[in-house]
Amino acid sequence: FEHLMFGGSVNVPNFDEKMALDLKHTQSFETYLEHEKEIKAKFWKYADIDIDDPMIDQSLRYNIYQLHQSGANDEKRHIAAKGISGEGYEGHYFWDTEAYMLPFFILTHPKQAKSLLMYRYHTLDEARLEAHNLGVSRGAKIPWRTINGKESSPYYPAGSAQVHINSDIAHAIKTYYYATRDDQFMAEFGLEILLETAIFLLEYGHFNDQGFHLYGVTGPDEYTAIVNDNYYTNKMAQAHFSFTYDYVTKHYDKAHQVLEKLSISVEDLTMMKKASDEMTLLIDQHKKIIKQDQSFMDKKELDIQSIPKDHFPLLLNYHPLHIYKHQVLKQADTMVALVFLNDVEKTLYQNTFDYYLKRTTHDSSLSKCIYGISAYHLGLHELAYEYFKYVATLDLEDRKKYTRYGLHAANLGGSYLMLAYGLFGIRMKEILHLEPAYQKEFKTASIHITYHQKNIHISLKDSKITLTSDGPIELMVYGKHVLVEASYTFGVKVN
Amino acid sequence: FEHLMFGGSVNVPNFDEKMALDLKHTQSFETYLEHEKEIKAKFWKYADIDIDDPMIDQSLRYNIYQLHQSGANDEKRHIAAKGISGEGYEGHYFWDTEAYMLPFFILTHPKQAKSLLMYRYHTLDEARLEAHNLGVSRGAKIPWRTINGKESSPYYPAGSAQVHINSDIAHAIKTYYYATRDDQFMAEFGLEILLETAIFLLEYGHFNDQGFHLYGVTGPDEYTAIVNDNYYTNKMAQAHFSFTYDYVTKHYDKAHQVLEKLSISVEDLTMMKKASDEMTLLIDQHKKIIKQDQSFMDKKELDIQSIPKDHFPLLLNYHPLHIYKHQVLKQADTMVALVFLNDVEKTLYQNTFDYYLKRTTHDSSLSKCIYGISAYHLGLHELAYEYFKYVATLDLEDRKKYTRYGLHAANLGGSYLMLAYGLFGIRMKEILHLEPAYQKEFKTASIHITYHQKNIHISLKDSKITLTSDGPIELMVYGKHVLVEASYTFGVKVN
Repeated sequence: FEHLMFGGSVNVPNFDEKMALDLKHTQSFETYLEHEKEIKAKFWKYADIDIDDPMIDQSLRYNIYQLHQSGANDEKRHIAAKGISGEGYEGHYFWDTEAYMLPFFILTHPKQAKSLLMYRYHTLDEARLEAHNLGVSRGAKIPWRTINGKESSPYYPAGSAQVHINSDIAHAIKTYYYATRDDQFMAEFGLEILLETAIFLLEYGHFNDQGFHLYGVTGPDEYTAIVNDNYYTNKMAQAHFSFTYDYVTKHYDKAHQVLEKLSISVEDLTMMKKASDEMTLLIDQHKKIIKQDQSFMDKKELDIQSIPKDHFPLLLNYHPLHIYKHQVLKQADTMVALVFLNDVEKTLYQNTFDYYLKRTTHDSSLSKCIYGISAYHLGLHELAYEYFKYVATLDLEDRKKYTRYGLHAANLGGSYLMLAYGLFGIRMKEILHLEPAYQKEFKTASIHITYHQKNIHISLKDSKITLTSDGPIELMVYGKHVLVEASYTFGVKVN
Repeated sequence: FEHLMFGGSVNVPNFDEKMALDLKHTQSFETYLEHEKEIKAKFWKYADIDIDDPMIDQSLRYNIYQLHQSGANDEKRHIAAKGISGEGYEGHYFWDTEAYMLPFFILTHPKQAKSLLMYRYHTLDEARLEAHNLGVSRGAKIPWRTINGKESSPYYPAGSAQVHINSDIAHAIKTYYYATRDDQFMAEFGLEILLETAIFLLEYGHFNDQGFHLYGVTGPDEYTAIVNDNYYTNKMAQAHFSFTYDYVTKHYDKAHQVLEKLSISVEDLTMMKKASDEMTLLIDQHKKIIKQDQSFMDKKELDIQSIPKDHFPLLLNYHPLHIYKHQVLKQADTMVALVFLNDVEKTLYQNTFDYYLKRTTHDSSLSKCIYGISAYHLGLHELAYEYFKYVATLDLEDRKKYTRYGLHAANLGGSYLMLAYGLFGIRMKEILHLEPAYQKEFKTASIHITYHQKNIHISLKDSKITLTSDGPIELMVYGKHVLVEASYTFGVKVN
């Protein structure tokens, strides 16, 4: 099995030697068993969660165990869309890993998170070739679908066109960095990925009188393809550009070597800053709704309630032209940006949520966890609970009737995020942010996380949150800065 | 060979009987030779042209002879993109026939024009299925690429998405009807095609506060795919809707049977009229330029002069995403509407011409004849002459180095249109329109046409036009209504 996995992985130097070494060091079953027990104990020590709903509790623990077991044990391998549990998506890696699964690893096993990010570093040369393939002479374009680092999407409108993956990886690096302050990783690897993926986007897009634009892209919603100024793509690119610019500025002593290596000039960085400042973020000012892209809200309406149940998922039953010209989403799109970046004021957030939820089929398993987290943010705890149950048990209950092709690995991560981002309102910023959601369905819940090398336990009991840490930790609680020495208790804010 | 052709054609009832009959009636070589001579003599009698530039004269005569020889000898067959001269495009039929070749047949051999239109009638059921395939429950969608009437496009963004083909066929029917007044054809066949193709577009598009829209379409320019409110598509649909509505209204006694057969209601017709009246036709009011579509003019610029010669055609050298997000055209797009419908005032025409010509690669052979005709219209006779030479000799001189795959049949027709539409300014409206172009390159030129069953000869000599007709004919000459008994002479207007 190990051998098969390597067959599809990136090039591993001295492969034969490694195999030989492994064989030479073969030990008794008991030794391996002990080793495995240690690994599992360590896994649960840092990752365990608890919630007073047996079904969700059991499911979440199953889900994170499956993430742990998903086969990404070294830097040459990533996590496939189905982990190693089935043949769906042929073992390919997508944005699913960084966007939906990685936060779990950052919060519980940062070393494994780093290892996953290193996969992108090791395949950066292939991503550079892909940039060329897309007509961009500089930078790197992370493949939408790959094993060995080469783009393997069979259908570019819902594949290569999803240039947001560059910023998804950048967001993952930023998040990892915020949670770990791992400047060594940044200097040696992270910054190079950030810069190369940013330069690609900078060249792919263009400025005009109205600002910086990214045209000819597909956002997360694959039922709306090849559009202009997709909000998610632009918003994530803005964060990508601005974080990269700021990081370089603050760490210029180390960064300048990376810049030289990549032939990235001060002018390039200035343009990056300008693109970030002038990024096009479309909002319908009259309706106070974020526009998914330049034309989504002007498209023909489609009443998804009136479509027969057996016509879903739409992509298997309708021509793409039919799907693309309607106001219909496969999955959360704009809302992903609102969940990841969490910097939109409430009315706009609420209106945007209402508008797109009504038009979303959830034909993708990457959808409901995002809407669920948003629902917690908005105080819609009943809806959030309904979605929480759904995403937690998606595979155990085979809710999509697709689990025979393998587990929905992104949703495994997504179900964890419903607890971490949704219920506890965790966000990984320069310091740890906490905005636990007001809700009535759970009396108790708890989560173990690691932040700034501190082991932290956060528990909910009767609308009170208690955080304990094995060392001093800075927090932002409902926008209030708090320095915690060992423990801190506060009440859940009522919406 | 005949047998092979039938192999790929639409279903022919009693095929074996027909073969048997043919064999039974086999006659001597001399008899066939005489028959063929008669056919050729008749062809030249009604189609011959003359122009005082030996190269263009010879080339044009070669081109129209090739159109005549292109294999469409009965209603079950159309003209392939390469006629029967080569294997390019695998013998498939496109809009090329109606848009670029049919005007030649209407003007010279209206019966053959009717036969070509009948092919669309005989394949209307397949077009109805294709409408369903595209998610539209009513009407018919003419396939972009077909032999047997079924859509055979391998790549829908530059295939099925070109819904303008419905209106291209409608325009051809209208033009045929204007030139022939063949009400019997209309009542029995033409109106059914017009209505079914119109209903498809009506359902494909949608109304909003700003008017009627056609989203998710590709115009003639295949370097700009899946866009909203493509001007050509909308303008042609508008003409399609309005002609259909008017025809039904004027001929309701016969039309109502067709309406009943197709279950098309008065409400449908009212919506068709409304869609025509409220059709979205985008114009940049500041720059006074027609917008190719909702976003073309906002896209990134591409300096096509700076692209190495061996990187053309772009579609063979660049990723579609690279091509689509730039302001670059494979071929004339908006200008095709201006040439076909010819109802745009001069400043807008000139600005639009300038804007798009600069951005057009002419990677398609359907491009230069359109720009050439426009150039004549605008008085740019030197440029027009240059293009005329190019399109006339495109295959004879193998200018695209592609003639080994077969003749460029659309351009064969296009080269004829440079003479008919360009130099003589012919347009087929309810009466024959003539607006000969001011130019200096040709001293003499002449053309035979048939209009309203009259055989007409139009000749240019020293800036004077003489028209002779074998019966009374109404004309519109430079916007002036003229009734000609047998002959009429007028001067070419100086721009």
